[in-house]
Amino acid sequence: MLDIAVIGAGRIGQIHARNIAAHPAARLVGVTDPDGAAAAKLAQACGGESISLDAAFAADAVLIAAPTPTHADYIERAAAAGRAVFCEKPIDLSAGRVRACLAAVDKAGIPLMVGFNRRFDPHFAALKSRLDAGEAGKLELLTIISRDPAPPPPAYVGASGGLFRDMMIHDLDMARFLLGEEPVSLFAAASCLVDPGIGAAGDVDTAVVTLRTASGKLCQISNSRRAAYGYDQRIEAHGAAGLLRAGNMTATTVEFADGRGFTTDPALPFFLERYAAAYRAELDAFVTALAAGRSPAPGGADGLAALLLADAAVESLARGVAIAV
Amino acid sequence: MLDIAVIGAGRIGQIHARNIAAHPAARLVGVTDPDGAAAAKLAQACGGESISLDAAFAADAVLIAAPTPTHADYIERAAAAGRAVFCEKPIDLSAGRVRACLAAVDKAGIPLMVGFNRRFDPHFAALKSRLDAGEAGKLELLTIISRDPAPPPPAYVGASGGLFRDMMIHDLDMARFLLGEEPVSLFAAASCLVDPGIGAAGDVDTAVVTLRTASGKLCQISNSRRAAYGYDQRIEAHGAAGLLRAGNMTATTVEFADGRGFTTDPALPFFLERYAAAYRAELDAFVTALAAGRSPAPGGADGLAALLLADAAVESLARGVAIAV
Amino acid sequence: MLDIAVIGAGRIGQIHARNIAAHPAARLVGVTDPDGAAAAKLAQACGGESISLDAAFAADAVLIAAPTPTHADYIERAAAAGRAVFCEKPIDLSAGRVRACLAAVDKAGIPLMVGFNRRFDPHFAALKSRLDAGEAGKLELLTIISRDPAPPPPAYVGASGGLFRDMMIHDLDMARFLLGEEPVSLFAAASCLVDPGIGAAGDVDTAVVTLRTASGKLCQISNSRRAAYGYDQRIEAHGAAGLLRAGNMTATTVEFADGRGFTTDPALPFFLERYAAAYRAELDAFVTALAAGRSPAPGGADGLAALLLADAAVESLARGVAIAV
Amino acid sequence: MLDIAVIGAGRIGQIHARNIAAHPAARLVGVTDPDGAAAAKLAQACGGESISLDAAFAADAVLIAAPTPTHADYIERAAAAGRAVFCEKPIDLSAGRVRACLAAVDKAGIPLMVGFNRRFDPHFAALKSRLDAGEAGKLELLTIISRDPAPPPPAYVGASGGLFRDMMIHDLDMARFLLGEEPVSLFAAASCLVDPGIGAAGDVDTAVVTLRTASGKLCQISNSRRAAYGYDQRIEAHGAAGLLRAGNMTATTVEFADGRGFTTDPALPFFLERYAAAYRAELDAFVTALAAGRSPAPGGADGLAALLLADAAVESLARGVAIAV
Repeated sequence: MLDIAVIGAGRIGQIHARNIAAHPAARLVGVTDPDGAAAAKLAQACGGESISLDAAFAADAVLIAAPTPTHADYIERAAAAGRAVFCEKPIDLSAGRVRACLAAVDKAGIPLMVGFNRRFDPHFAALKSRLDAGEAGKLELLTIISRDPAPPPPAYVGASGGLFRDMMIHDLDMARFLLGEEPVSLFAAASCLVDPGIGAAGDVDTAVVTLRTASGKLCQISNSRRAAYGYDQRIEAHGAAGLLRAGNMTATTVEFADGRGFTTDPALPFFLERYAAAYRAELDAFVTALAAGRSPAPGGADGLAALLLADAAVESLARGVAIAV
Repeated sequence: MLDIAVIGAGRIGQIHARNIAAHPAARLVGVTDPDGAAAAKLAQACGGESISLDAAFAADAVLIAAPTPTHADYIERAAAAGRAVFCEKPIDLSAGRVRACLAAVDKAGIPLMVGFNRRFDPHFAALKSRLDAGEAGKLELLTIISRDPAPPPPAYVGASGGLFRDMMIHDLDMARFLLGEEPVSLFAAASCLVDPGIGAAGDVDTAVVTLRTASGKLCQISNSRRAAYGYDQRIEAHGAAGLLRAGNMTATTVEFADGRGFTTDPALPFFLERYAAAYRAELDAFVTALAAGRSPAPGGADGLAALLLADAAVESLARGVAIAV
Repeated sequence: MLDIAVIGAGRIGQIHARNIAAHPAARLVGVTDPDGAAAAKLAQACGGESISLDAAFAADAVLIAAPTPTHADYIERAAAAGRAVFCEKPIDLSAGRVRACLAAVDKAGIPLMVGFNRRFDPHFAALKSRLDAGEAGKLELLTIISRDPAPPPPAYVGASGGLFRDMMIHDLDMARFLLGEEPVSLFAAASCLVDPGIGAAGDVDTAVVTLRTASGKLCQISNSRRAAYGYDQRIEAHGAAGLLRAGNMTATTVEFADGRGFTTDPALPFFLERYAAAYRAELDAFVTALAAGRSPAPGGADGLAALLLADAAVESLARGVAIAV
Repeated sequence: MLDIAVIGAGRIGQIHARNIAAHPAARLVGVTDPDGAAAAKLAQACGGESISLDAAFAADAVLIAAPTPTHADYIERAAAAGRAVFCEKPIDLSAGRVRACLAAVDKAGIPLMVGFNRRFDPHFAALKSRLDAGEAGKLELLTIISRDPAPPPPAYVGASGGLFRDMMIHDLDMARFLLGEEPVSLFAAASCLVDPGIGAAGDVDTAVVTLRTASGKLCQISNSRRAAYGYDQRIEAHGAAGLLRAGNMTATTVEFADGRGFTTDPALPFFLERYAAAYRAELDAFVTALAAGRSPAPGGADGLAALLLADAAVESLARGVAIAV
C-alpha cells in the first residue's frame, strides 16, 4: 500500500485525489493547499485528511498538483526528503530551472513521474501498442489534432508560458512518444484568431508545428484554443503498411436522423471527461512502477525534452525558420 | 446492337429510355405513350422517336414502363410478336393473371425480365456476392429496412394493390434473392400511422413481415411510407461467421460538427437517386443476357413468387396467423 | 447510508457487490453464498464480510443474485422480514409463482426492484430520454437487435426457461420501456441454427418477435445466441419526425486502414463490459429511490409483464399464430 | 454546341474525350496524338475522328491532355488561332515560361481554363459552398491530406518537376481555393521514405507544407506517394463556429463485421475513380462558361499561383526557412 499526499486541491488535484482513494494499492494520506478549506473539502470527499505541507513530505510519495511555479521547488523538497514524486506537467517553464531540478532528483535517486496523461489514454495507448507491433508498418507521417473547446481567460495566458509550453507541450510529448525517435528539427506557425485578448497578452491561440526526425519521419500538430464541437483530440499514424487513427470520444452512441442528416453527439467537452480513464491509468502506472521498484515513466527527461521542443517552437515562430533540436 | 422500344414515358420510362440511349450495345428505337407529347419529349431528349404502340412491338425488345394494369397484356402481345421483354414490376396484381401471362411467355419462348432493380444496386449486389462467397458463413438472420421518404397520395394507394404488393414486393424479392432458398412461412403486422387517408383507402402505411425458410433462416422486413431522413434502404445479413450490411447512400461525404454534434448528409431522397446505378446495371444485365443468348434474370417466375409472398402478407394480416407459402 | 447484503457470489453478484462497495450512499454489509469460499473471496475484495443467509435478511436491503429458482423464495423471505429487495431478473420462470410472490410483496409493502439493467445503459437511456422529449416525433417502428457473442452450454439451456424467458426477456422489457404503451399482440418465429445441442435440449437459439401496441406501433426484435463480432446490442426508434438509434460500443476509437478497408474494433465482448455503466446506474437508482422514499423502478409488475410476453412468445412459436397479450 | 478537339489520347485524354462525347452541349470533333493508333482507338470509342494537330486548332476549343512540356506551346498556338483552351495542369514547370504563355493568352483574349479537377469534386465543392455560406464561421485552420496509393516509377519522377510541382500543386490550388485569400508564407519539410529510387532521382515522396495567409489563417498539407488503403483525399476546414470535413469515397457502403471488428471498403483506388464526377463537372463548367460568354475558372492566373507556391516549397525545403510568397 503506497501512502500518497496530494499537494494542491484544484481541478487536477481533485482528479488525482479521487483516483488515489479508489486505487486498491494506494492510500490518500492527505491533501494540502494554501486554501485550507479547499484541502479539507477534498480530503473529506476522498477519505483523507487536510494536512500541512510538511506532513505531505512525510508520505511515501507526493503528488504535485499545485501551480506551475511551485513544481520545481516541491520536487527538490521531495528529493531532499527522499520521497517519490508524481508531478503535473510542466516541471517548470524555464529549461534551466528544470535541469537544476532534475539534477537534484538524480542526485537523490528518487523516482519522478511527469503527468503526460495522454500517453495513458486507452485509445492512444492502443494506437501506440499496435504501431509498435508493426501493424501499420514503419511510421512515416504523424498527424496530431488537439483543440480546446474554449479559450482560457487572457489573464491565465500571461502566467501559462504561452500556448506552446502550456498546451502544445502535451502534443509534443505525444509526438516523441509515438515517433519512436527524437525530432531533429521543428517549425512553428501561429496566429491569434480566437481572442484578441490573448494576442494582447502576448500569446497566440491557433498554432501548427512541423517536426522531422533523423530518419525523416514527419509530424504535423494542429492546435486551437477553440473548437465549437468539443475537445478535439485525434491522432493519425500513417505507416508503410497502413493507417492507424484514434478519434474523438462521444458521451453516447446515440445518433439522430432527420432531413438535416445523421447527427452523433459532439466530442466530449474537455479533459476531465476525455481523459478520465487516462488519469486513472496514469496513477496506476505510478503506483505499479513504485511497487515493482521500477522507474515510473514518463520521467523528468521526458518533461525536459517536451519543454525544449516548446521552446524551439517559440523561437521558430519568432524567427520564421526551422529550429534544429 | 439491341433495338429497344420503351412503352411509357413517365418517371420510370424516362430512366430506362436514358439508360438505353447511353448503353453502347442498345439503341432506343422509340417511345410510345398515350400522352403523345410526353413520348415525343422523352424521345427527343434521348435521340429516339415517338412511335406508335404497334411500332413498339416491331423492335427487338420492348421495355414496359406503362401503368401496372397494362403489363400482362403488353407482355402477351410481345409474346405473340416474339419480342424480348423487360417489364417493370409487377407483372399484374392478380396471381392468376400473372400465371396466365407467364404461360403465354413460356409457350412463345420469349425472354422476359422483371424490373426488380434492387438486385442490381452495387451495394446490395456486393453484399450478395460476398455472402455467396461465404464471407459471413451460413446466413441465419436477414434484416431488410426499406422506408419511403414520404407517402404517396391516398388516390395512388387505391390502384396500387396496397403496400405489400406495391412497395414491400421489392423487399420480398430481395429476401428471396439473399436467403438463397424459398420462404416457407410468412407473418405480417401492419398499421396506418402516417396518413389516415391511406387507411381510409383501405391500406396500411407501416408494416413488418417475418419470413422463415425450410432450413430455419429468419428474415425481418420493416416498411414505412415515411422517413424524415430520406429514402431508407438498408440490409443486414447475419451469418455464422460474421455480419454483412449495406447502408444508406448520401449525396456527399461532407460532415459538419458543432455543439450539436457531427452531422452527415441525410440519405439520398428517393429511388431515382438511390438506385440510379442499379437501373443502369439492370438494363445492362438485360442487354448482355440477350446478346449472349441467356435468359435474363430475375424472370417471370421471380415476379410471381414475390407477388405470392405479398398476397400471403395480405392474408396473414387479415387472419393474424403465419401463412404457409 | 443503505446497508445491503448480497445473496449470490457468482458473476452477477460480483458486479453488484463491487458497485455497492463503490457507491457513496451504500454499504456492503456482507455476501452470502452456499459456496462459502466464493462468498468470502468476494466479500474480502469488496470490504464486506461473508455472512449467513439469515444475517443477509437483517440488512436494510437484500440484493438477490442467486440462481433463478431461489428468487421468489428469497423475495418472500425479505417481504416477511420487511426488507427492500433488488432482484435479478427473472422473479421466477412461472407466471403463477411470480404472481404469488408479488402478492406477498404488495402485502408487506416492501420496495422491490427487478434487474432490467439495460434501461440504465447510458446510450439506451439517452435514446429513451430524447424519444420522450419528442425529438423523433411519435414513435412508429422500434427495432431491437440483441445477440449474444456465443451460445451457452446446452446444459445451461435446460434450466434457463428457454431463449424467450432467459434472453429475450430483456428485449421484451426494453420494448415495453420504449414503446410507451403495452403490446397487445405478439408473434414469434425461431430456429435452432447455432448449436444442435440447444435444439436437443428443447430450445431455440435464433429468434425474432413482432409486437404491436393498441395504437398500432410495431416492434421487431432479433435475437441470436451467437454473433461473431461481439455482443450486438442495438436499438432503433423510427418516429414521425426522425430516427433515433443507439449502436454498439467498442473498446477503443482506434481504426486501422489498409487494402482490406477501414476497420474499427469489434463490439464489446459481453454484458460485463457492455453494461458496466448500466449496472452502476441501476444500483444508484435503487439506492436513490430508497433514500427518497420512492418505489424503485422497474418493479415487480414490470418483471411479470416481461415474463408474460416471453410466455406469449413460447405459445406463439408453438401455435404459429399471433397471441393477444 | 461547342466543338472540342482533344490533344492527347493517354489516360487523362481518355477521360476528357468520353466526357465531351457524353455532354449534351459539346461535341468531340476529334482526337490527335503522335500515337495515331491510340488517337484512332479513342476517337472511335467516343464517336469522333482521329485528326491532325492542325485540324485540332480549327475546333471551337482545344482540350490539352498531352505531356506537360507541350502545354505552353499548344496554348500559344491556340491563342494565335483564337481558340478557347482547356489545359491540364501544369501550364509549364517553369514560372517564367508560364508567364510568357499567359501574356500571349491575355493578348489574344482567348478563354483559358486550367485542369484543377478537385475544385469540382462534389464533396469538396459542397464543403467550399457551405464554408462560403458561413456554416463553420470564419475559417481558421485548414487541413489537406492527399496521398497517392502507390509511387510512380522513379523514371516518371525525373520529368515530373518533383512532388511539389507534380502532386502537391493540386493541394496548393485547393488551399488557395478554400482559404479565400492568398498565402503569404510557406514552409516545407519532406523526406524520401517510400522508394529510394525516388530519392536517387532527386525527389522526395513524403512531404508536408504549412501555409499562412495575411489574416493569419493556417493550412497544413500532408502528402505521401503511398497509402496502403487507397487514394487518400480528405479536407478539414476548422472555423470559428464549427468544422466542415470531406472524407474518402468507397466503392460500396458494405461493411463486414467479425471478431476483428467492423470493416468498410478501402478508399477508392486512384484519381480515375475518385474524381470521375469531378472531371465531368469540370468539363461542364468549361462548356457552360464559354456558352455564357464568361471566363472559365480556374484560369491561367490560378495555374501560375499554384506553381509559384510549389516553387516556394522547393526553395523552403532547400533552405529550411519559411518563404514569403
